[in-house]
Amino acid sequence: MTQTHGPLNDLNNTGLAQKLQHLIDHKTKPLGALGQLETLGRQLGLIQSRLDPQLVQPQMVVFAGDHGLAARGVSAYPSDVTWQMVENFLAGGAAVSVLARQHGLALTVVDAGVAHDFAPRAGLQIRKVAPGTADSSRQAAMSAQQCEQAMAHGKEVIRSLPGNTVLLGEMGIGNTSSATLLMARLLGEPLLACAGRGTGLDDAAYQRKLDVLREVLSLHVDAVSPMATLAAFGGFEIAMMVGAILQAAAENRVIVVDGFITSSAVLVASRLQPLVLQRCVFAHQSDESGHALLLKHLHAKPLLKLHLRLGEGSGAALAWPLLESACRILREMASFEVAGVSNSDHDAGQRPADEA
Amino acid sequence: MTQTHGPLNDLNNTGLAQKLQHLIDHKTKPLGALGQLETLGRQLGLIQSRLDPQLVQPQMVVFAGDHGLAARGVSAYPSDVTWQMVENFLAGGAAVSVLARQHGLALTVVDAGVAHDFAPRAGLQIRKVAPGTADSSRQAAMSAQQCEQAMAHGKEVIRSLPGNTVLLGEMGIGNTSSATLLMARLLGEPLLACAGRGTGLDDAAYQRKLDVLREVLSLHVDAVSPMATLAAFGGFEIAMMVGAILQAAAENRVIVVDGFITSSAVLVASRLQPLVLQRCVFAHQSDESGHALLLKHLHAKPLLKLHLRLGEGSGAALAWPLLESACRILREMASFEVAGVSNSDHDAGQRPADEA
Repeated sequence: MTQTHGPLNDLNNTGLAQKLQHLIDHKTKPLGALGQLETLGRQLGLIQSRLDPQLVQPQMVVFAGDHGLAARGVSAYPSDVTWQMVENFLAGGAAVSVLARQHGLALTVVDAGVAHDFAPRAGLQIRKVAPGTADSSRQAAMSAQQCEQAMAHGKEVIRSLPGNTVLLGEMGIGNTSSATLLMARLLGEPLLACAGRGTGLDDAAYQRKLDVLREVLSLHVDAVSPMATLAAFGGFEIAMMVGAILQAAAENRVIVVDGFITSSAVLVASRLQPLVLQRCVFAHQSDESGHALLLKHLHAKPLLKLHLRLGEGSGAALAWPLLESACRILREMASFEVAGVSNSDHDAGQRPADEA
Repeated sequence: MTQTHGPLNDLNNTGLAQKLQHLIDHKTKPLGALGQLETLGRQLGLIQSRLDPQLVQPQMVVFAGDHGLAARGVSAYPSDVTWQMVENFLAGGAAVSVLARQHGLALTVVDAGVAHDFAPRAGLQIRKVAPGTADSSRQAAMSAQQCEQAMAHGKEVIRSLPGNTVLLGEMGIGNTSSATLLMARLLGEPLLACAGRGTGLDDAAYQRKLDVLREVLSLHVDAVSPMATLAAFGGFEIAMMVGAILQAAAENRVIVVDGFITSSAVLVASRLQPLVLQRCVFAHQSDESGHALLLKHLHAKPLLKLHLRLGEGSGAALAWPLLESACRILREMASFEVAGVSNSDHDAGQRPADEA
């Protein structure tokens, strides 16, 4: 695996963080009173290197792929649902379609490797590596070459889209298994701490899923590097997201991360280039049981916790207005001085320790 | 106190809840996969008695009032900040102004009893009961008559506004003290479990606040009914919100509740008319320490938890797009049948117990 990833600048190595903090602290509100929205505004300012960040032409990109492992019954749904849902995304009837429309997010669906031939149309990018990955309980989900190709496609997808912000989501029956395996291997966490019920397995099916995942882990015991792990466990949509994240970070785009599977792509990308995390906004904490632990490892504080477990980018779309709010607070809120509002003695002094 | 409150119909006493659930369960997503957004959609459908709820002409209403108790140093800010912030709301520079503008929420500021004479202008309703409440550490914050008048004004404010949805917020230096006292008395919870640091008290000031609040509670030991408690502890903006909540509920408007102080008004209103709670959507859990406990008593599951402690209705405005999303999911998402997507065997059967 020879792919290299250019260096990113460390956003904390500038004087801008202090300037942003000063600006926020002088808005007409008590110190820290807008909580996580202030942290978010600071981050968006740092990503864009400006005191008045603005989110332009936000792109919702949903990567779809099929999984050979699905034949082992790791999902409550048949693989056909992957292509059926891609059609649903494009027809405007899926959750992410509805939410993207609500918020004016341009929606692009990427066929990263669905086992179906789609008719070309607007909003669909066909970047199929293969019609589904191989069954990772028998061999690597993809070859090293396929993995590199998927990542390169993910970079091209980002380069093909305008704007300074991307929201990433995915669709792929069986892909919570890939995310779980990536997480277990790269973080060294026990399988039980990583594996959830996906989109709705009952007890017996969940036990079968655990058995299959244990089998896959032991088959690929030599896969330890980020790229080897990604190739071993798949899928194409996750590898393409890894490429997309690296590219978006290199362009200093804001990256809005959806749920468990998208977070697993961020995990892989961050092992290749740790500073991508500075460009990531984590939209929500999923009900998929491993997600909380994965977010903790990524030092991520998600914006929403609404017990979602859908994927598609639906959580990223739901969190979207909060990013817009954070920018507007920076750009439009008055300072104490301008508004003629008295500041407290407390605020005029130092920031309390918990806000510093 | 002779004010009566007409009966509300029990929204759970219709067959609509089952119809809404059936509709949601057949959307193209696993059962329950949109989590709290599904619960919210169901509630909005029930409030509007329809399967396709729609939020029309949403009104953000911010009630402002001053507090005699503020002279005792229970806030980090001087009372002048109340009127200065009202000016800031109207000039468009406050957090709630920015967020209301972002989401197309009409903003009305109500002078419920600010110690300042405002020039009349668009967006301001002057409904002043008195220029600030009395100091509740010496006498009742308001007379029974003032309390009734404030509630009646609150009802008139709602009647004066169009649309089927109100978002409620407040401004009043010292009003976390009123909310704390209302909560402690009406719920019988210890003061320490209810009292927080407001918008930024340090340790010494917080101790003084606790001493003052203990003094107020013991002075008004006979105030136990909802109306007597409200009159004893104030303030005008809270009493006006109580009236607004009762009126909005009677009209089956959706009521979006902001933070700690607005929730204390809901507590009082729910003691007069318990079914108002069916019409309330709790926007967020504030960092003000008593709010989590108050929400628990109200059986409320807030949408956001962003460590906000600002008030103004800022949290209600931030949560607003989620209500809009919940309606759109009901109205615009495709069913499995219409979209031609295969459902799982699991979903075709019964709902899992945790989703029932």
